[in-house]
Amino acid sequence: MVSVGIVGGTGYTGVELLRILVMHPNVEVKVVTSRGEAGNKVSCLYPSLLANIDLVFTKPEVTSLKKCDCVFFAAPNGTAMLMVPELLKAGVKVIDLAADFRIKNPASWEHWYQQPHTCPEILQTAVYGLPELHREEIKKAQLVANPGCYPTAVILGFLPLIESGIAKEAQLIADTKSGVSGAGRAANVSTLFSEAGENFKAYNVNAHRHWPEIKQELELMHAYDVNFVFTPHLVPMVRGIFATLYVTKLEVSTDLANLYKQRYKDEAFVRVLDEGVLPETKFVRASNQCMLSVSRPYDGDTAVVLSVIDNLVKGAAGQAVQNMNLMFNIEETTGLANPGLFP
Amino acid sequence: MVSVGIVGGTGYTGVELLRILVMHPNVEVKVVTSRGEAGNKVSCLYPSLLANIDLVFTKPEVTSLKKCDCVFFAAPNGTAMLMVPELLKAGVKVIDLAADFRIKNPASWEHWYQQPHTCPEILQTAVYGLPELHREEIKKAQLVANPGCYPTAVILGFLPLIESGIAKEAQLIADTKSGVSGAGRAANVSTLFSEAGENFKAYNVNAHRHWPEIKQELELMHAYDVNFVFTPHLVPMVRGIFATLYVTKLEVSTDLANLYKQRYKDEAFVRVLDEGVLPETKFVRASNQCMLSVSRPYDGDTAVVLSVIDNLVKGAAGQAVQNMNLMFNIEETTGLANPGLFP
Amino acid sequence: MVSVGIVGGTGYTGVELLRILVMHPNVEVKVVTSRGEAGNKVSCLYPSLLANIDLVFTKPEVTSLKKCDCVFFAAPNGTAMLMVPELLKAGVKVIDLAADFRIKNPASWEHWYQQPHTCPEILQTAVYGLPELHREEIKKAQLVANPGCYPTAVILGFLPLIESGIAKEAQLIADTKSGVSGAGRAANVSTLFSEAGENFKAYNVNAHRHWPEIKQELELMHAYDVNFVFTPHLVPMVRGIFATLYVTKLEVSTDLANLYKQRYKDEAFVRVLDEGVLPETKFVRASNQCMLSVSRPYDGDTAVVLSVIDNLVKGAAGQAVQNMNLMFNIEETTGLANPGLFP
Amino acid sequence: MVSVGIVGGTGYTGVELLRILVMHPNVEVKVVTSRGEAGNKVSCLYPSLLANIDLVFTKPEVTSLKKCDCVFFAAPNGTAMLMVPELLKAGVKVIDLAADFRIKNPASWEHWYQQPHTCPEILQTAVYGLPELHREEIKKAQLVANPGCYPTAVILGFLPLIESGIAKEAQLIADTKSGVSGAGRAANVSTLFSEAGENFKAYNVNAHRHWPEIKQELELMHAYDVNFVFTPHLVPMVRGIFATLYVTKLEVSTDLANLYKQRYKDEAFVRVLDEGVLPETKFVRASNQCMLSVSRPYDGDTAVVLSVIDNLVKGAAGQAVQNMNLMFNIEETTGLANPGLFP
Repeated sequence: MVSVGIVGGTGYTGVELLRILVMHPNVEVKVVTSRGEAGNKVSCLYPSLLANIDLVFTKPEVTSLKKCDCVFFAAPNGTAMLMVPELLKAGVKVIDLAADFRIKNPASWEHWYQQPHTCPEILQTAVYGLPELHREEIKKAQLVANPGCYPTAVILGFLPLIESGIAKEAQLIADTKSGVSGAGRAANVSTLFSEAGENFKAYNVNAHRHWPEIKQELELMHAYDVNFVFTPHLVPMVRGIFATLYVTKLEVSTDLANLYKQRYKDEAFVRVLDEGVLPETKFVRASNQCMLSVSRPYDGDTAVVLSVIDNLVKGAAGQAVQNMNLMFNIEETTGLANPGLFP
Repeated sequence: MVSVGIVGGTGYTGVELLRILVMHPNVEVKVVTSRGEAGNKVSCLYPSLLANIDLVFTKPEVTSLKKCDCVFFAAPNGTAMLMVPELLKAGVKVIDLAADFRIKNPASWEHWYQQPHTCPEILQTAVYGLPELHREEIKKAQLVANPGCYPTAVILGFLPLIESGIAKEAQLIADTKSGVSGAGRAANVSTLFSEAGENFKAYNVNAHRHWPEIKQELELMHAYDVNFVFTPHLVPMVRGIFATLYVTKLEVSTDLANLYKQRYKDEAFVRVLDEGVLPETKFVRASNQCMLSVSRPYDGDTAVVLSVIDNLVKGAAGQAVQNMNLMFNIEETTGLANPGLFP
Repeated sequence: MVSVGIVGGTGYTGVELLRILVMHPNVEVKVVTSRGEAGNKVSCLYPSLLANIDLVFTKPEVTSLKKCDCVFFAAPNGTAMLMVPELLKAGVKVIDLAADFRIKNPASWEHWYQQPHTCPEILQTAVYGLPELHREEIKKAQLVANPGCYPTAVILGFLPLIESGIAKEAQLIADTKSGVSGAGRAANVSTLFSEAGENFKAYNVNAHRHWPEIKQELELMHAYDVNFVFTPHLVPMVRGIFATLYVTKLEVSTDLANLYKQRYKDEAFVRVLDEGVLPETKFVRASNQCMLSVSRPYDGDTAVVLSVIDNLVKGAAGQAVQNMNLMFNIEETTGLANPGLFP
Repeated sequence: MVSVGIVGGTGYTGVELLRILVMHPNVEVKVVTSRGEAGNKVSCLYPSLLANIDLVFTKPEVTSLKKCDCVFFAAPNGTAMLMVPELLKAGVKVIDLAADFRIKNPASWEHWYQQPHTCPEILQTAVYGLPELHREEIKKAQLVANPGCYPTAVILGFLPLIESGIAKEAQLIADTKSGVSGAGRAANVSTLFSEAGENFKAYNVNAHRHWPEIKQELELMHAYDVNFVFTPHLVPMVRGIFATLYVTKLEVSTDLANLYKQRYKDEAFVRVLDEGVLPETKFVRASNQCMLSVSRPYDGDTAVVLSVIDNLVKGAAGQAVQNMNLMFNIEETTGLANPGLFP
């Protein structure tokens, strides 16, 4: 049994981690922290867990977290880096669902997150937790930076084309759409039901923090600069990310479907759909699957890739558990094999 | 291992049964029938099951169904009664998720369902599959009539008050609200997104088929006629039933909260919430839980009971699996222990 | 031309007032106040008004408001009563969309709104602005208390039964459902899209401020105590109120449909639907209509009345403009004659 | 007064035409046809019109339509072309909201709409009804082909860049998102609330009928072939189109904002938003406005244009009325000046 601690258990990624972990046969959740809810029952804040968990929120303290085998940070950006050094020293394995360890270049991190990084030396040891790209390193990692939700959908969608080198001249465009839970549980006017319901909008069109994260991973694949535009949108639904990816100037007439199917044939959590079937976010809701389709419409030289995930599962808590499984030598799909919730 | 067949696997209760059963450790799904989809892969119609099931829909035929230990009917009303007699003779256990065996009085059944009942003698042997009310009979039953979604929420909500006899003079009112999936997967204008979205309406105000079903079970509890009004409404959400129940003329000043807590203290799937906490459909989404609260507001003699379930789980497929567990002597919560999906 | 000022133009009733008033042929909006947005363009906060209004928010000051013929208060409870005495003295007509002048009994008001009332003497001069009930008084009023959204739907639904005196022994139950815009534009976790979407819940079951308001008006109709229970619910849609009303113990077998049709036959904004047609909130969205149906189902002695309005129009801004029309001797339907927005 | 007939009044564009026309001061609606609803009251199908229209649906017959000054076709593709020749001969002005007269090349039309065109000679006389592009021709036209919803949003978005000739080398990409009402009122499983709600998907990725329509108009602007990819998506909301447009390889460093503002400065129904403000579909709901923003993010050579309309107003019925105003020499904004419905 892996004993687990969760820092910041009151947000949507926190409750989603709990939803998955309480059913995981190899895990025992020992500590769930929250500064604001300390002393209250977890199931009081989240009655959906009433039949499954009896824990009480505690204050986030290294002393108790140190006793866990694995600590997940589901806290705001900038929280994990304050506690991680001590936890690593104590031998704890750490998975950060926030952004503290995703961007390798500290200067770039500080530019995008507008705060100093408190442990840049540890940053270099963190592994970017996208198993389909870095599985072997994750298995050996003590610190995993769990990818952002958009980056997961976008990188898995571009990956075969970039890795294969056939998109060198391409303009890459990621037109991405997210359910509102991606904005978290903070009380903001713009994510009120009355504002986000019956509405569709773009946001952060000129600068989004997931842009450098995606760019970093794409460039690591093939060691060249990528030309990459990223436009996020908000969809009036709770869960789901849909990424529509465009890759222009495809010179070689590769069999794209085959390229994608080959690349992902051994992956448990990535499905390349048969021709004529297009992914929908509802196919993967509440599941850890990523579903993809690829085509080159209107006989042009632009490929269109569609990629869907549940932002809270494969885009956050599910992928974190997948990483935990790898780090603790547990079968990778354990606790994550359930189908999507349809309808 | 219980080998299972599902008749009518293309509707929402069908796919929900599959979602639950593919993760059930004691079950192997052998047959999924559909007249219209015979020959096609189940996961082609429902890609959410792509990673979990490789079966092909077959025509509904008694020959193949007979080889199963348990057959679920997730087909339209009037389908099960045509095949059930032969399956029972072959020793198969049957759970009908439609209405063929819910109403004991054949004349009443024929009145409400507007067709002759083809096996009224078998009707008498069927057990109404609400485990909280008929657990012991279900364990011994060969044929279980799985309750309707509204009846599940409404009966569990009224039950302690009726059983205890303190509501004899009451006017019972069930003001019920259902998500749109309760209307099934048939293509109707009134359940189109553009009609049902951003809309709230009542329907079948003067006559709904669940009225006689609820009335029958309430009257069986205490052997008197109940005065019962039932108003169903359609909510712009996919899943969930919310029942607001009114019980007037409560003479005795019983401790209602205690009455409810006592009645359900040993039930795994019914939670009476603490005072001040009110149930929400989202607390039980994708779970087999029923959550209840009870109060007597404005110092009046009318009790208000709130009852929530997921119409496709505790209101259909989940309860059917709960019944199967009881009928096959499997631990009652097996395959049904997961928390709700929040948010 | 009526020159108009709006105090608190940043909330949903404020922007809805503006949406109606900018198209009203007899009105010129002169002042829109907001403490927080003072100095900013109204259309900057609400781009939906970009083509229609060029005003800038100003600080709420009696000096500039005094120059208006009519001032609407679309501000939080407790705001209007601080400025109204001076405005009335200056001869301005005032319509308060908040609750400051709705409840005649100051002690009751203070109990429900948890603050002292600063001008109880003026409270007595205020007219409750439900034109279908108090039209003649409204025409002569200088201060109108615009009804709450629930009270509008509920009182119009009960009215013919109470007025006629045939429901004296009845238990009155109002099971009401509101779109999320009824909760206003404040940033709260419980009205986030991720919480209120795909969810249905009740709230304030044991005490809601609209209860005494409804009770007052019902009792004024017939001078007896009414037995009244009120259960509000939150619906995952932006606009609309649906009230399901129950009236038990109806002694006389009146022709209910006829009673309702007669009562409202001269009302421009209340429609009693033909038998067999049930109201839906979408029928009245963005319009000032209230639609009603009445029946006595299951041959019982309980009548079921269904009442729908758009909470922001007939339930707030539209009714306020209807009151203004009456107060300024403008044809009652002016600016309010548009059909509902369907779908 | 313009006497108006509407062929096909039962769909969403039909009811939207009625919503606008019953409030239009220069119009009298004389005939509303429907094969299926003939003999029934219009307000019986659409109670939202109960207070505004007393007409009865009639069978579609040229005899009665001939007596109108203007006939709108809100019927399925292939309907208008059967009646239009006779109506034109009778001197009636016609606006077709379907696709029969949008594509100038009859062979292309037949390829995309999979049926023979019955009056290709009349096709050549039709004017494409986008006032911002063809205003003077529309004023003189007897037959106007009202643009599709996507083409309206997409062409208005690309227009300044294409007209100015600075995007000659560009790959044009239109990633478009539509509310579900765009799919019409036909009963289909894929647009049921339970399927389209809480879901996001793409459709017709490899071939959509609006592609050749958009391409035709873009190429007419500047007489060169455009490289154009078009990906439509379905959003879980009723109304609204959001188009995210990408224009690559922008050689000249033009002041894009200024280019757009200049081009549209005299247009009543197109607003270019100030820098930093991004359009949302809710800003234009129920209004005839198109709102645009333009930027060149991440210092690249790709421009990103955002364009929103209400698909049923500027994308259908509103634009049709705008065209009617032009054809009958009525002030262009008459009946269309209302603000958007927010929230």
